[in-house]
Amino acid sequence: MKSFAIIGTGAIGGYCAIKLQQAGFTVHCLLGRDYAFVKQHGLTLLSEQETLTVPINAYKDAAAMPACDVILIALKTTANDALRNILPQLMHAQTAVVILQNGVGIESEIAEFVDAGKIIGGSCALIINKQSPGVIKHIGFNTIDLAQYYVNEQQKGITQQVIDLADCFNKAGIESTPQVDLFTMRWKKIVRNIPVNGLSVVLNASMQDLVSDPAILQLLLKMTEEGIVAGIKCDAKLTEDFFELRRSQFEALKKMPKSYPSTKVDFDAKQPMELHAIYENAIHIAKQHNASMPLTEMLYQQLKYLDERNTSNL
Amino acid sequence: MKSFAIIGTGAIGGYCAIKLQQAGFTVHCLLGRDYAFVKQHGLTLLSEQETLTVPINAYKDAAAMPACDVILIALKTTANDALRNILPQLMHAQTAVVILQNGVGIESEIAEFVDAGKIIGGSCALIINKQSPGVIKHIGFNTIDLAQYYVNEQQKGITQQVIDLADCFNKAGIESTPQVDLFTMRWKKIVRNIPVNGLSVVLNASMQDLVSDPAILQLLLKMTEEGIVAGIKCDAKLTEDFFELRRSQFEALKKMPKSYPSTKVDFDAKQPMELHAIYENAIHIAKQHNASMPLTEMLYQQLKYLDERNTSNL
Repeated sequence: MKSFAIIGTGAIGGYCAIKLQQAGFTVHCLLGRDYAFVKQHGLTLLSEQETLTVPINAYKDAAAMPACDVILIALKTTANDALRNILPQLMHAQTAVVILQNGVGIESEIAEFVDAGKIIGGSCALIINKQSPGVIKHIGFNTIDLAQYYVNEQQKGITQQVIDLADCFNKAGIESTPQVDLFTMRWKKIVRNIPVNGLSVVLNASMQDLVSDPAILQLLLKMTEEGIVAGIKCDAKLTEDFFELRRSQFEALKKMPKSYPSTKVDFDAKQPMELHAIYENAIHIAKQHNASMPLTEMLYQQLKYLDERNTSNL
Repeated sequence: MKSFAIIGTGAIGGYCAIKLQQAGFTVHCLLGRDYAFVKQHGLTLLSEQETLTVPINAYKDAAAMPACDVILIALKTTANDALRNILPQLMHAQTAVVILQNGVGIESEIAEFVDAGKIIGGSCALIINKQSPGVIKHIGFNTIDLAQYYVNEQQKGITQQVIDLADCFNKAGIESTPQVDLFTMRWKKIVRNIPVNGLSVVLNASMQDLVSDPAILQLLLKMTEEGIVAGIKCDAKLTEDFFELRRSQFEALKKMPKSYPSTKVDFDAKQPMELHAIYENAIHIAKQHNASMPLTEMLYQQLKYLDERNTSNL
């Protein structure tokens, strides 16, 4: 794995691009609105450890990009319709397609047009914001865990391509551990995202505002518990430890600089929120397993109301 | 019952003052910020049927008011601390104290310093807004039901003073029916208020916005159901009919002019919301009866967060 195509060079995609390129990998970035700026000025990373600007292979059209060993998908899930056209142009026989997106159930949507065996899910624990076109600010956490997509339980397990990709990320200074079970990894992520992302939008609050308020911290914990109980019913391998981990992460968040989850950033930019990937798919999967998520459903209904008004002219 | 003292002459208090005075009753109104305006210009009612302005006996200090046959309490519950001082000054031996306020459990708080037998609860179904000082706009519904406060179940029932007071309201053109059971009447009211008032604030939405949105209508119905199930566990006499009534009222709301519940009006005026009376007391009573209200608790937590920031300088 030597070359990376990055589809969607925003906060996560831009961060991966800079870190991988600095580690010696070849990186090709597909951009939208930021193309002209990044083509000219490269990408800039601001973090506690470093401030650096690197030139980047920037593209506005996937047709101009070479096939790569790895495709990192870092678009918003709301733009995934475009992947059906983009991905085939960038793949060779061994290309791994890595979904670094929020939500659950997205891999199976991509598997409609990509071989299941090539699909890897990546779960990002990274607090990153794009401050302006091409300027990425890293605020906290630095992990992208990886798991092989599988169609049936027998295929579940760690594959060589997952091990190889984790090595690449680790070489680039991003902590990455291969995970046995994609669904468990994804469900853990939505248990993180569902309460924090949604409440940040509904209450117009930073993550620090949320965890610092006693009533909201109580709600965050209750929704975390709801997510864990539902996940277990859906066969995610979750334990009480994960609840305690989240509790300690909420404490850690209090001390971090003010930051906003991606869903809130999208909302404030009048962009559609990733309600399908994060909320609808989770609620749907839970229902299939007779698990109830009443608080999640309520938050989803509130978000759906706000999303419609935010992206229309109501 | 010939004379009425009205404590808190806002939307509800002002509406009652105008209607009772027009029907020939003597009315004395205690006012706060609007005193000077109303003293000079009287009260104005705008409704589909009529527009009228009437001079009013206005007071800024309860000490200047005469004792009256009926005291209508139409303050915000958040200002109820003042009643301990105000009420004794306005009462004679037969005075009825009528609590026209939102929420549940307020009567027992007033009974700490007023004889239980004198206390009547009034449940308003009135969509009214104060458009400016002394100017009251009536938008929809026109009912104030009444029930005697009781300390124990044996005292439950319709009293003569409740019948007499209902007669007064009916003569004044406000529909009023004596109710057997105060708790049931109050719980019905909070089942109305809890979802609509809270979601209006959290989503910055009119009542018409809420009921016209399919996702939110679903949430309103689910919270109505939660409230009914919890109320039944607390011994409120509620049936499936009440659910159907609410469903039809949500439909009726769609066709009314854009309007906002009192809690939203308070919020927008940077006033404290009646979270204690409407939410905390309901959640507390439900817990005492092992009834669970998870959606109500979630909405309360959201409101508490917003209230603290709205009334401080955060």
